[in-house]
Amino acid sequence: MNAPASPAAADALPRHFLGLEDVSAATINRILEEATRFRHLVEQPDKKTDTLKGRTVINLFFESSTRTRTSFELAGKRLSADVININASASATQKGETWMDTVRTLEAMTPDALVIRHAESGAPHLAAGALTSHCSVINAGDGAHEHPTQALLDILTIQLHKGPIQGLRVAIVGDTAHSRVARSQIHALHTMGADEVRLIGPKTLIPAAAEEALGVRVFHDADAGLEGVDVIIMLRMQMERIRGAAVPSQREYFRLYGLDRRRVGRAADDVLVMHPGPMNRGVEIASEVADGPYSVILPQVTNGLAIRMAVLKLLAGGESA
Amino acid sequence: MNAPASPAAADALPRHFLGLEDVSAATINRILEEATRFRHLVEQPDKKTDTLKGRTVINLFFESSTRTRTSFELAGKRLSADVININASASATQKGETWMDTVRTLEAMTPDALVIRHAESGAPHLAAGALTSHCSVINAGDGAHEHPTQALLDILTIQLHKGPIQGLRVAIVGDTAHSRVARSQIHALHTMGADEVRLIGPKTLIPAAAEEALGVRVFHDADAGLEGVDVIIMLRMQMERIRGAAVPSQREYFRLYGLDRRRVGRAADDVLVMHPGPMNRGVEIASEVADGPYSVILPQVTNGLAIRMAVLKLLAGGESA
Amino acid sequence: MNAPASPAAADALPRHFLGLEDVSAATINRILEEATRFRHLVEQPDKKTDTLKGRTVINLFFESSTRTRTSFELAGKRLSADVININASASATQKGETWMDTVRTLEAMTPDALVIRHAESGAPHLAAGALTSHCSVINAGDGAHEHPTQALLDILTIQLHKGPIQGLRVAIVGDTAHSRVARSQIHALHTMGADEVRLIGPKTLIPAAAEEALGVRVFHDADAGLEGVDVIIMLRMQMERIRGAAVPSQREYFRLYGLDRRRVGRAADDVLVMHPGPMNRGVEIASEVADGPYSVILPQVTNGLAIRMAVLKLLAGGESA
Repeated sequence: MNAPASPAAADALPRHFLGLEDVSAATINRILEEATRFRHLVEQPDKKTDTLKGRTVINLFFESSTRTRTSFELAGKRLSADVININASASATQKGETWMDTVRTLEAMTPDALVIRHAESGAPHLAAGALTSHCSVINAGDGAHEHPTQALLDILTIQLHKGPIQGLRVAIVGDTAHSRVARSQIHALHTMGADEVRLIGPKTLIPAAAEEALGVRVFHDADAGLEGVDVIIMLRMQMERIRGAAVPSQREYFRLYGLDRRRVGRAADDVLVMHPGPMNRGVEIASEVADGPYSVILPQVTNGLAIRMAVLKLLAGGESA
Repeated sequence: MNAPASPAAADALPRHFLGLEDVSAATINRILEEATRFRHLVEQPDKKTDTLKGRTVINLFFESSTRTRTSFELAGKRLSADVININASASATQKGETWMDTVRTLEAMTPDALVIRHAESGAPHLAAGALTSHCSVINAGDGAHEHPTQALLDILTIQLHKGPIQGLRVAIVGDTAHSRVARSQIHALHTMGADEVRLIGPKTLIPAAAEEALGVRVFHDADAGLEGVDVIIMLRMQMERIRGAAVPSQREYFRLYGLDRRRVGRAADDVLVMHPGPMNRGVEIASEVADGPYSVILPQVTNGLAIRMAVLKLLAGGESA
Repeated sequence: MNAPASPAAADALPRHFLGLEDVSAATINRILEEATRFRHLVEQPDKKTDTLKGRTVINLFFESSTRTRTSFELAGKRLSADVININASASATQKGETWMDTVRTLEAMTPDALVIRHAESGAPHLAAGALTSHCSVINAGDGAHEHPTQALLDILTIQLHKGPIQGLRVAIVGDTAHSRVARSQIHALHTMGADEVRLIGPKTLIPAAAEEALGVRVFHDADAGLEGVDVIIMLRMQMERIRGAAVPSQREYFRLYGLDRRRVGRAADDVLVMHPGPMNRGVEIASEVADGPYSVILPQVTNGLAIRMAVLKLLAGGESA
């Protein structure tokens, strides 16, 4: 386990954390450094710091997500912030209020960070543009656009197990066309100097013109795509999306793209297997792999907590621009 | 921005905070004074005090309300109380328990304040009467009866922008017949010495015999009613109530009673425009007004936090009778 | 009110708290001692201790329960732990994740205790077996199996009102065949030396071969069964279970087994009447009894808080094996 590749970054963080497309390696490294420190803390008996005492974090989830919400909630609480959870699908929007008025109303309660998940791409950007206070907006997943803290926890996980991202070959397997996780991962991997990012999946689930537009290599054959890679990132198969004639059945999908032990054998000997969760065992990944020796799926969760603590500290702690 | 009109009140607060009908100006002033202090605190980086450390506040909402629940939750947390949220519509009452047994059970968990919202008028009073401990009940809205913290935040907002309530003319526009907010506002405005309270709306949405019973002036014509007023309070139009032959359509309602820029022009030059939220833009209020220069709709939310901190401090902090 | 019968227990607690079937009197006494101390604390103005500062408690409820969840949440908060509530019926399991993966994911967030309620008997045991960290699992009710903290709060309540359990005759009335509460109570009462445990109810609602298997006395006649008992524990009648030809109607049930004042008169003069809640007034218990002089139903709730504080302290506080 190596320390992250991290030249100290002196520049200020952006006030909002909306995506990784335009975020510099210096900024990412600064977050990773903080996260590495918190990564040690989360295994102590006393996992708490006073960092955000007196600050307020509001989790505003227009789309439900137990995992991400819990991770941000716990991150905030361990930093001693006051954390408020709002499941906005069951809230004032049902009384005719626009979601932007919900955002403005919550801003008037003087939070320091607003963690927003929304089914529509760009919603956190719109929210950030509408705020008039010092409050930071953190994107916890917007439509098919970005999910930046998920991608950073993946980078942290790779670094902690393999060292610098430079020179690594990473395969992302599944529905990259509709995945905000994949989009953020591609940006982060490129920024951090990955040698090659491969997208593996059927044509219907790969972004159009991905090779030119995203600088990746596309494989429709899983065995070929996994050949020699250092990291395999499996995406959750959202079964509701693959109904229809153009995509294979669940069983056929597993045969073509599911990750079993045999297929892991195509990758490098010390390959890492990752998954953002929640997993569909037997659909995109076999249990023998999910629970096997190359899997870092559970460490990803722990690292996610550290990443969110780092982002909350840097943004809600008053150190951002 | 003036200080509130507040001769220091030496008398003890009542143990429960159920409505404003019988609350004295001295008591209201005492709450406003505390709230004014907290109003400054909520804009500091460290928004927290130890005031209620070790005390417990339970939000018991038999009717859901993101805005009011969040405001009380955050108020309690910033006072360092332990805060528990209970969405009672999805709770033990479904297993055959009476709502009063739910209240008694929660009292046995030794909270210091029970914040109750209920669809039936008088429910918080019944709860308060049934308690046997020192626990205070705070009414967070009961049926069409009262919503006292909402009215106090309105008073605070007016005072912070206009100084003493004495001599002001205030118009409340909309369905005052079914509005607990309006009832509490009318009591508070009269107690604090408002010169005139006007109710504006169609006959079907104005309380019967309002002029005699409530000491207000009634206008069915919006333009006439808004003439020269210092404060306009728009109420949320609850569309489910205005279905039926006796009330106008949504579009017709806006034409007759909706607040647009032209209509604001009938009021005093420095009029304040208020709304308890959530707003229906284009139904009772035009966006040009909601977001315009006279609007204090978002400051109302911030002030609400300060009012709830003040009420929680005074009641759960052991300073009440 | 007597102190609990408690020779100090030197042996370490088990890491998990899954049931009372194999728990020694020494362990129960150790929990009761801690709980007795916390029982005093919950009535102080400052009800908080630093005991679990920096520790994390996750309430993972696959089956909803306002009462038990609130009790554990408040217990954790008053010990200064960070508490996270997860209503798992509305969570990732809906996205295809297995409930055991939900457990593993949450463990990766490094909690110190995982409080689990699940509709299936044995689920907390499976979870405990799958954990790889130091995290403790606490059973908050699993299927028809056990609900150990409920039984301990009953023991504490009896001790506080009657002194040692030794020599007491206790009747449990209702559907003991499907009740996890009854199963845990029977184990605890026997371990603590009760003279006699009686199960009262219709044949269809008494466990098969109860007398031999559980060491209890069975009565199908309520008046006979209540004769001379020191404690009566009424169980909630789960009406959904007594539909069908083999069981009586709600009205008939009350006539045969409901606890009214007349029937309480069969018991000892200083009998205690208990109920785990939520109550169905008029189904298994008359209001004159629930609210009457022998009832300790509300003290049970307060004692429950103390028991959960004790269990959380001992397990999440790092004092377990």
